[in-house]
Amino acid sequence: MASPSSLQTQFVLTIACPDRPGIVAAVTTFLFEAGGNILEAQQFDDLQSKRFFMRVVFTAVGETDGYLDRFRTDFLAIAETFGMDWTLRDRLEKRRVMILVSKFDHCMVDLLYRWRNGELPMDITAIVANHPRETYAGVDFSGLRFHHLPVTKQTKMEQETELWDLVRETKTDLVVLARYMQVLSDGLTAKLNGRCINIHHSFLPGFKGAKPYHQAYERGVKLIGATAHYVTSDLDEGPIIEQDVERISHGDTPDDLVRKGRDIERRVLARAVRFHLDGRVILNGGKTVVFTE
Amino acid sequence: MASPSSLQTQFVLTIACPDRPGIVAAVTTFLFEAGGNILEAQQFDDLQSKRFFMRVVFTAVGETDGYLDRFRTDFLAIAETFGMDWTLRDRLEKRRVMILVSKFDHCMVDLLYRWRNGELPMDITAIVANHPRETYAGVDFSGLRFHHLPVTKQTKMEQETELWDLVRETKTDLVVLARYMQVLSDGLTAKLNGRCINIHHSFLPGFKGAKPYHQAYERGVKLIGATAHYVTSDLDEGPIIEQDVERISHGDTPDDLVRKGRDIERRVLARAVRFHLDGRVILNGGKTVVFTE
Amino acid sequence: MASPSSLQTQFVLTIACPDRPGIVAAVTTFLFEAGGNILEAQQFDDLQSKRFFMRVVFTAVGETDGYLDRFRTDFLAIAETFGMDWTLRDRLEKRRVMILVSKFDHCMVDLLYRWRNGELPMDITAIVANHPRETYAGVDFSGLRFHHLPVTKQTKMEQETELWDLVRETKTDLVVLARYMQVLSDGLTAKLNGRCINIHHSFLPGFKGAKPYHQAYERGVKLIGATAHYVTSDLDEGPIIEQDVERISHGDTPDDLVRKGRDIERRVLARAVRFHLDGRVILNGGKTVVFTE
Amino acid sequence: MASPSSLQTQFVLTIACPDRPGIVAAVTTFLFEAGGNILEAQQFDDLQSKRFFMRVVFTAVGETDGYLDRFRTDFLAIAETFGMDWTLRDRLEKRRVMILVSKFDHCMVDLLYRWRNGELPMDITAIVANHPRETYAGVDFSGLRFHHLPVTKQTKMEQETELWDLVRETKTDLVVLARYMQVLSDGLTAKLNGRCINIHHSFLPGFKGAKPYHQAYERGVKLIGATAHYVTSDLDEGPIIEQDVERISHGDTPDDLVRKGRDIERRVLARAVRFHLDGRVILNGGKTVVFTE
Repeated sequence: MASPSSLQTQFVLTIACPDRPGIVAAVTTFLFEAGGNILEAQQFDDLQSKRFFMRVVFTAVGETDGYLDRFRTDFLAIAETFGMDWTLRDRLEKRRVMILVSKFDHCMVDLLYRWRNGELPMDITAIVANHPRETYAGVDFSGLRFHHLPVTKQTKMEQETELWDLVRETKTDLVVLARYMQVLSDGLTAKLNGRCINIHHSFLPGFKGAKPYHQAYERGVKLIGATAHYVTSDLDEGPIIEQDVERISHGDTPDDLVRKGRDIERRVLARAVRFHLDGRVILNGGKTVVFTE
Repeated sequence: MASPSSLQTQFVLTIACPDRPGIVAAVTTFLFEAGGNILEAQQFDDLQSKRFFMRVVFTAVGETDGYLDRFRTDFLAIAETFGMDWTLRDRLEKRRVMILVSKFDHCMVDLLYRWRNGELPMDITAIVANHPRETYAGVDFSGLRFHHLPVTKQTKMEQETELWDLVRETKTDLVVLARYMQVLSDGLTAKLNGRCINIHHSFLPGFKGAKPYHQAYERGVKLIGATAHYVTSDLDEGPIIEQDVERISHGDTPDDLVRKGRDIERRVLARAVRFHLDGRVILNGGKTVVFTE
Repeated sequence: MASPSSLQTQFVLTIACPDRPGIVAAVTTFLFEAGGNILEAQQFDDLQSKRFFMRVVFTAVGETDGYLDRFRTDFLAIAETFGMDWTLRDRLEKRRVMILVSKFDHCMVDLLYRWRNGELPMDITAIVANHPRETYAGVDFSGLRFHHLPVTKQTKMEQETELWDLVRETKTDLVVLARYMQVLSDGLTAKLNGRCINIHHSFLPGFKGAKPYHQAYERGVKLIGATAHYVTSDLDEGPIIEQDVERISHGDTPDDLVRKGRDIERRVLARAVRFHLDGRVILNGGKTVVFTE
Repeated sequence: MASPSSLQTQFVLTIACPDRPGIVAAVTTFLFEAGGNILEAQQFDDLQSKRFFMRVVFTAVGETDGYLDRFRTDFLAIAETFGMDWTLRDRLEKRRVMILVSKFDHCMVDLLYRWRNGELPMDITAIVANHPRETYAGVDFSGLRFHHLPVTKQTKMEQETELWDLVRETKTDLVVLARYMQVLSDGLTAKLNGRCINIHHSFLPGFKGAKPYHQAYERGVKLIGATAHYVTSDLDEGPIIEQDVERISHGDTPDDLVRKGRDIERRVLARAVRFHLDGRVILNGGKTVVFTE
């Protein structure tokens, strides 16, 4: 009889290190000898930064925890030889995601829908809003923790402390700012480095700052867009993960841009979160390597 | 026997004026009484500037010159009543277009191809380049005037004088900067107000100034674009006519962006020129109304 | 004191009739004399069918019901002169929309979200599903009628009778098949002519019939799409309202296509419904005229 | 002193074989030991056909001819072990391409422009047209062989014999049907299997056969497209390499579709040819694996 331990599990290995010959051979030979079969593999040599990036999806036979432990021990030698930053995960193990939201809830609603239908393999640790729960009538929060953490200029420090405590208590892996209209402090930003994704409602670097749709209207552009990026202390300057645009016309009012923008924002943010969860995004200085589907 | 004067001619009427009730009724009643049959008509009320914009394509029976003269005389009363800026043209009468080019010739080559196959109804008054003719090997200039007007910091004023003389001498209606990598002086810009189109190789307002593809590469954006706009004395800030973008990836070098960008630039510029020639673009302060096809 | 009757109301007038000179002049002069001020107007002459189409949005001062009644009476003479099919509505008066759904609920969920946030100005008369309510866990139906009308080959006639009774009882204006995986009978289709919109999960006319994503996978296309169309007795051949596509790759499995397709389907259907509700879609034989935003 | 033979050369290796563990390890270890450094590598496991596909770009030090010969000899053992179909080429070695054209020359003109500016690394062995040279006024054929091979129903066999002789005589690697409006015989198609690319002016599988833009107009679709595919004996059914679309409206006449379609056709064909030349396209039954840039 087949026991669970004999099932094939998919693992995702990501690597970033200085480029030099032999990395792929070393990694794939190791994988082969560890009983892995490669399903997908993508590499990228950045000729500017001289860094090498790799993502491998492979299957192996065996019980997950034991396999991961053994792999991690055995892989250390290679990792040290090449000076690798690397991660290894069971592909189906769900990441723990916290969603922050303000008044506009379209991105949160979309993420919740994609979570419920299995499109985003994650556990939601909490919904954190700076508006009270009744703001989101028509949204089903059943089975979800909801925290109302209001914030003012005066209470920002305390609120961020609560937020950070919540992140730690819930073992949150990824924080998603789903149109959370508050600027995080440098301190919190540093703690969430590489694991906090924001959706900005413009095609960056155009229209940074406040009210980008109104800026776009005033400038008379013919396309509007949205940008998902990792949050850094440099506002609207973090590494970009995903962007998209839509055509508009002279007849569109700022309100029309806001409406059309909602569709762009939610699909750009969902793609960025999905890419992040599947180990497809690797930081490369102020930029990202995104191994798309 | 049918004489040429009995053929149906298409006319294009464009109007911009302060908004108030009755404009469309006045114009279309006038047209009906002048024997016109409306083929296309588009209107736009800008609720912000409180200005009204209209473009009408209509047919009428009769000899063009006589019809235009009569129409212009008779229409004056309505135009004055409503304070209209207006234009009226035979739709098939070709505009006179001058193309300015520097080293990169992809936009010029594309415009020439579209001119030869009839896609752009224009007469080309001259090709003006700040590089010598042999720069453009493989380009067929037969039947075209080619002027080499080199320019340096010291000779800029003289060169622009020559350029302006050429515009006047050739009765040029529209000047197209087809990747002409020189900034025009404020004086020349003012003279060409509303009839000089530039193609900028970025999705404005992102990456203004020099080397936009290199800026885009450094920033790590996921889409690059191009922008066609009327030239004003405010560099890269003129009214935008048309924009488009294409997806890029982390694997694209600056050279790849330049290559992919060429395709975007040439189609954006061609569309902008086509819209302008067909009376589809009306200035609205620092923006444009574009009645698309 | 301002009474409600002195507020400005927006009206939408749509017209389809044989083309001949003077229509626009007659209509806009009538509008002017009826105290209307045109906000938007679009016309189209179909040179093939020789039919003329027009949509006008105008404001007028006065109480809606009285204004509509007077307008309708007075406009009759013009309508008869030109042989017009025409409609006139208060733009803010909500249409009554019934949503039909099967197992896949992404389009319904999206329509409900857009209804709640005011993007789709409609009243939902009922949700009708051929699956029981518990199929849609996580969907908030509060304030909505939900009808479970199961259907089998044997009960199809009875089920459609119930459906039609429901349409009449609820005074439904528009029926939306939001991935309702049942083919309507010719009889019901005829009754809902021009007011039943379906979303087909392929870029028609490619991949008609069942399992279009699997067909697309087998054929190896590089883009997949979705099509919103009015339902006719000719399956997958009704007049197309809106379409869109997305890029896929050789690496996408049929399941990936289904997932990516959901995003295309829901935005295409939402746009089609929005266009229909705002009087932007006029039937033109087996095609549509769509006066886009 | 550095001799030319010590320069770094880029090689492209493509592989298709039944999937099994160890392929990537074997190939990359071989490459490492052969002194190669991987620049790009992409793999794909087709879980349906159970076939594995790989493309590797690597650099090696040494003189091209000698390196290729040694590599080919040494790699045989691995290739046989895994049952590989494989190719190895110097990336900069230009392929020999023949362009076939009928009356519409926009795709040919575009390919010539991209060839002249270095975007398409190829040598053009001949332009073959079934119309005389004067058809293409304004096209600069200097440095190119031009063959007028007229064809009628009666002379088709003879013309194809001439064509095939020309392919062999010129050592042509790839034949591009740049809107060559003739159906090739099954015999010639078989001889050119996998090295003859056609551009079809519709978004296949929609609108197969003649006059696709007119079919699209009649059907009332909202987007039109173009498809580049390998030619097979099954008309319009060959493996698709690349597709793209553009939005149209009810106002577009068949002539407008033809005009807008030209832009789609030329960029889709250029991308397909570029992908083919760079070893990015591998046949997978009736489909293709395309390792995009």
